[in-house]
Amino acid sequence: MNFSSIDQNVAKHIALNQEEIDFFHGLLQHKKVKRKQMILQEGDFCKDSFFVVEGCLRSFSIDKNGFEHILNFAPPNWWISDLYSLFSQKPCILNIESIENSQIILFSRENQEKLFAEIPKFERFFRIIAEKSLVSHQQRLLDNLSLTAEERYENFCKRYPSLIDGLAQKYIAAYIGVTPEFFSKMRSKILRNS
Amino acid sequence: MNFSSIDQNVAKHIALNQEEIDFFHGLLQHKKVKRKQMILQEGDFCKDSFFVVEGCLRSFSIDKNGFEHILNFAPPNWWISDLYSLFSQKPCILNIESIENSQIILFSRENQEKLFAEIPKFERFFRIIAEKSLVSHQQRLLDNLSLTAEERYENFCKRYPSLIDGLAQKYIAAYIGVTPEFFSKMRSKILRNS
Repeated sequence: MNFSSIDQNVAKHIALNQEEIDFFHGLLQHKKVKRKQMILQEGDFCKDSFFVVEGCLRSFSIDKNGFEHILNFAPPNWWISDLYSLFSQKPCILNIESIENSQIILFSRENQEKLFAEIPKFERFFRIIAEKSLVSHQQRLLDNLSLTAEERYENFCKRYPSLIDGLAQKYIAAYIGVTPEFFSKMRSKILRNS
Repeated sequence: MNFSSIDQNVAKHIALNQEEIDFFHGLLQHKKVKRKQMILQEGDFCKDSFFVVEGCLRSFSIDKNGFEHILNFAPPNWWISDLYSLFSQKPCILNIESIENSQIILFSRENQEKLFAEIPKFERFFRIIAEKSLVSHQQRLLDNLSLTAEERYENFCKRYPSLIDGLAQKYIAAYIGVTPEFFSKMRSKILRNS
């Protein structure tokens, strides 16, 4: 199993010795998932955080009219989960699916607590990860409250530069909160004007 | 200075001895603010997190058309800040204002780092606070993407039960993302039907 990308992710914020790294690796589980594979479904109980090594995942909800709304994309080196379910131990409100063939690392909440007990400085790592994620969610909330769809698309492109070309338009539309038809017209207009 | 409410907030997640409590208190600053006082303005550099002891604060942005959009309310025992500015040391994108006469505790980022160095278990406390806040922001994002204004108002009432009656309608409208006129009509309709 290759943990080099998750090790680099951790090393950005805390320094570990070899013994600590080995202990951490012992708590992780590697998994290959096929394109369009559901990793977590609404109503399940979420027990893991997922770290993306290769590929891309998305988390989304389905509203009462059957429309999908994308909360997050997770390209390589991003974490993704249904945090509501993970922390509350209540059923998931989100679905998590692989957009392409992906390699992911599963890190269970149970093992996370073991890690905190054994190597408390991981509290610092996950504090920083949570704070960074919080900032980005706050900015997106403000975007949704105050920006036009076109401006939200611009911010999407800044946030996920690696995804713009590879991603189906319907996914970007479901992220910025417009219909695929509206998105397609808007994008044509932007391309014409640029 | 009375720190009992912030001590109770901390004690929910970590246990401290008297020496640790005293060290923590030494890093805090108490402040009284009048109704409608601006505590932080867009363009400032945010250096503090604010814990509300009494009263209520709100964080909001002003869009290019002059409309206010409320990101968060902070009634007693809630934390509030411009996290983007606090973590990045870039200028604020938010304004923070007291809705009523309030007592708040200022906790600077600089003192927070001192606290982490001296009492590392505070990493755990702020990790949990950040994670809880993240869950609530994720849920609000999903609400904004998938729910009607009426459903968002219902969720607002569940999230801030203590605020419903005391808060000016224009603030609730700016939180759920509708104009005050639309909100007023919607609320009359809800009251008629209930």
